[in-house]
Amino acid sequence: MTTSEHLPGSSDLSAHLDRAGAEAELFELLRIPSVSADPSHVPDMARAADFLRAKLETLGFTVRVDATSHTGKGGQTVAGHPVVFAEKQVDASKPTVMIYGHYDVQPEAPLEEWVSPPFEPTVRNGRVYARGSTDDKGQAYAHVRGVELLLSQGALPVNVKFLLEGEEEVGSPSLAAYLRANVEALKADVIVISDGSRFAPDVPTVTYGLRGLSYVEIHVQGANRDLHSGSYGGAAPNPINALAEIIAKLKDDQGRVTIPGFYDGVEEITPAEREMWAKLPQDDAAFAASIDVPALPGEAGYSVLERLWARPTLDVNGIWGGYQGEGSKTVIAAKAGAKVSMRLVPGQDPERITQLITDYVPTIAPAGVKVEVKSLHGGQPIKVDADSPFVQAAGRALKRVYNRDAAFARTGGSIPIVADFRSILGAPVLLVDFGLNEDAPHSPNESFALEDYHNGILTGAYLLQELGQVGESEQ
Amino acid sequence: MTTSEHLPGSSDLSAHLDRAGAEAELFELLRIPSVSADPSHVPDMARAADFLRAKLETLGFTVRVDATSHTGKGGQTVAGHPVVFAEKQVDASKPTVMIYGHYDVQPEAPLEEWVSPPFEPTVRNGRVYARGSTDDKGQAYAHVRGVELLLSQGALPVNVKFLLEGEEEVGSPSLAAYLRANVEALKADVIVISDGSRFAPDVPTVTYGLRGLSYVEIHVQGANRDLHSGSYGGAAPNPINALAEIIAKLKDDQGRVTIPGFYDGVEEITPAEREMWAKLPQDDAAFAASIDVPALPGEAGYSVLERLWARPTLDVNGIWGGYQGEGSKTVIAAKAGAKVSMRLVPGQDPERITQLITDYVPTIAPAGVKVEVKSLHGGQPIKVDADSPFVQAAGRALKRVYNRDAAFARTGGSIPIVADFRSILGAPVLLVDFGLNEDAPHSPNESFALEDYHNGILTGAYLLQELGQVGESEQ
Repeated sequence: MTTSEHLPGSSDLSAHLDRAGAEAELFELLRIPSVSADPSHVPDMARAADFLRAKLETLGFTVRVDATSHTGKGGQTVAGHPVVFAEKQVDASKPTVMIYGHYDVQPEAPLEEWVSPPFEPTVRNGRVYARGSTDDKGQAYAHVRGVELLLSQGALPVNVKFLLEGEEEVGSPSLAAYLRANVEALKADVIVISDGSRFAPDVPTVTYGLRGLSYVEIHVQGANRDLHSGSYGGAAPNPINALAEIIAKLKDDQGRVTIPGFYDGVEEITPAEREMWAKLPQDDAAFAASIDVPALPGEAGYSVLERLWARPTLDVNGIWGGYQGEGSKTVIAAKAGAKVSMRLVPGQDPERITQLITDYVPTIAPAGVKVEVKSLHGGQPIKVDADSPFVQAAGRALKRVYNRDAAFARTGGSIPIVADFRSILGAPVLLVDFGLNEDAPHSPNESFALEDYHNGILTGAYLLQELGQVGESEQ
Repeated sequence: MTTSEHLPGSSDLSAHLDRAGAEAELFELLRIPSVSADPSHVPDMARAADFLRAKLETLGFTVRVDATSHTGKGGQTVAGHPVVFAEKQVDASKPTVMIYGHYDVQPEAPLEEWVSPPFEPTVRNGRVYARGSTDDKGQAYAHVRGVELLLSQGALPVNVKFLLEGEEEVGSPSLAAYLRANVEALKADVIVISDGSRFAPDVPTVTYGLRGLSYVEIHVQGANRDLHSGSYGGAAPNPINALAEIIAKLKDDQGRVTIPGFYDGVEEITPAEREMWAKLPQDDAAFAASIDVPALPGEAGYSVLERLWARPTLDVNGIWGGYQGEGSKTVIAAKAGAKVSMRLVPGQDPERITQLITDYVPTIAPAGVKVEVKSLHGGQPIKVDADSPFVQAAGRALKRVYNRDAAFARTGGSIPIVADFRSILGAPVLLVDFGLNEDAPHSPNESFALEDYHNGILTGAYLLQELGQVGESEQ
């Protein structure tokens, strides 16, 4: 650890870390199967929210567990998962920092691929394996423990708010309304989010750009019932073949998306960004080897990092139809479907892109089938000013933990709510991630290195110290 | 009824039909719940076999009830249901006709949908309702009564064998071994099967061709684990997109299969067949309406019937990969798979076709994924020469019953045992069906029109007369 002699109370906090306590508490949270996508887990969502409420109250926060809701497709009001909102005001002259995180997790399927049960945190080789360990319980809870660490050494250097939601993994459908209804309470000078991966194990990273998202489902209907492939094969439309044809037509042989208008307005990568990223320790061969693939296919004319961070994509996330069991069943299915998502970049609007694909798919469907495109969710792409004092403060905090310069990067993922924070709350967002891609978020055997968790706690604490030094004039 | 004055003893047999007796006896057989799939019905299987043995013995047949067995998945020997084999030799210079049928029936579930109990034959509107009434007890027993009818008027015009099995509804697992073990006893000049539906209510049909089958599974592997589509989208290979691309490439925009060599050797539809099928009362619009589709897509240049009966096809029967649950999961799956089957026509060999697709798929896979093609099963296509004296004899027999020209059709499905008869016994097969689709075989309220049953008895009798006229030289 470096010392930062210009900061009051900047002694090395790592000596005061309660590692065992921090781990035990996180594991307790990880044991709650708070899968937001699955209605059967509604009670677990409430349990997770209550766990956070209780903890933050012990730290002297004023905590609310707020019910949420959003408008469903049919115009009806749909109950959402609760938001945990906590605040601790220390000095009106100090900046207010709001930490956003989410306590919901991805579904655990496929369960059979987990080495240890997804909701029984298990430590192997210095990593805790559990659904939500890195995304986002582990990273969000590091901030809670960072605040606790600072409090154990004195007062907080800034006013702190926590906004912990339970719907991030289902697209945060209720959050925008919640923000709008609570603009005053949620007022902050800067919002900090740790919900992703740093560039590399030894490259602490501040992220200033995120891709957006348009996520749709394509439904293809053939006959009104499953048919015998002997009696009907050669005349009945096959919705699975049709779906495959539609999907294949959505990209050309250069890896470009074929939807008319898809690239309109896309912000080009600047020469400065190209140069900065080219200097990062990116090893494409090692990247390919890390996921055991012989090639990294993608849009022609762009480096791998450029494609991941600043170019839009289209991926099928799921597909189904017909007989999926053992052996052979000679059936022509009545219907088939796929989930298709597009990562978007600055200059693209999710609603417009969703409309474009909705209009386009029927035009490329083969004869005999009916198709329907259903919008599931979207998120705005985002880019923040890399020169802002908050970004620079985050860089300094990271240097104190990792003893090396932070990288300034973008990321390929989407955090739709970042755009809402920008547009509704008017606050800039800092992304300071403690995780790594190898944590396998969204996959079986998701994990989080305990060292990263503890460094996250330290980073959270130092970041609040550094942000406490940012004068009003600098903001 | 027409008269066939060139035939000795060709008086109108319908005058000698014992309708009440034929019905009473069939109903007795229908009362035995010989469900082959359900082990609790093993005693009923034995009762049904014994019923047939006793009846055929009264007709002067030498009857064997043979135990059967087959090899289970684990390599163990599994006991099968008995085969009833009967023969009546009349004149070594005459052809030998073997009639194949099955005395086992589908399970009756869902029982609550039956209007009258499935094993209590009940007549309503000229139809007998009972499980097995059309499939296949009614159709098979029509042949038994046809023989009895001929015997009541004199001697049999041919040598007759009956092969009545008890495992058709569970895939005839023991039959191939039984055929191999009894090749000599089962020797026949022609095999007659009545176990399906004729073309239309007023179209008596001789079916002389069946399609074959090659059924494979395609497995596509991308990364070694599921990936987050934000972090990896744009660089990681996507096995679902790759699978869609592979499937789309398996057919061209004319509906033709693109696998090199796929059409090599395919027997073209003859001008005579084209003309014959064009005359059938096939209504494409009604066919499309019956399955509620706006078009009947398929290979360019062929009519619907031609495509269904005499052209090979490729259909995906099932597909899977990634997230199939509710809502959106932003995942790039590690793997995807599909079941793909090809209906084959004379001139195509299932093993060769399976090899062709196995070799071809890897060549059309996009970069970054690994593919594997696994053979599930195959079946030989079958065609009897439409001009053969047997087919012509069947046509004449039908004309004597229905007083109209029979249709000579093929069918799009596959009957694996027909290929076994061909390859193991070396005998051509005639499909002369007395049933109709509306009999609802395999469904609740299965029925058989009594008129169709009696016409089946007459057809069986006339068919043996006509086959008796086929000289050795003609065969």
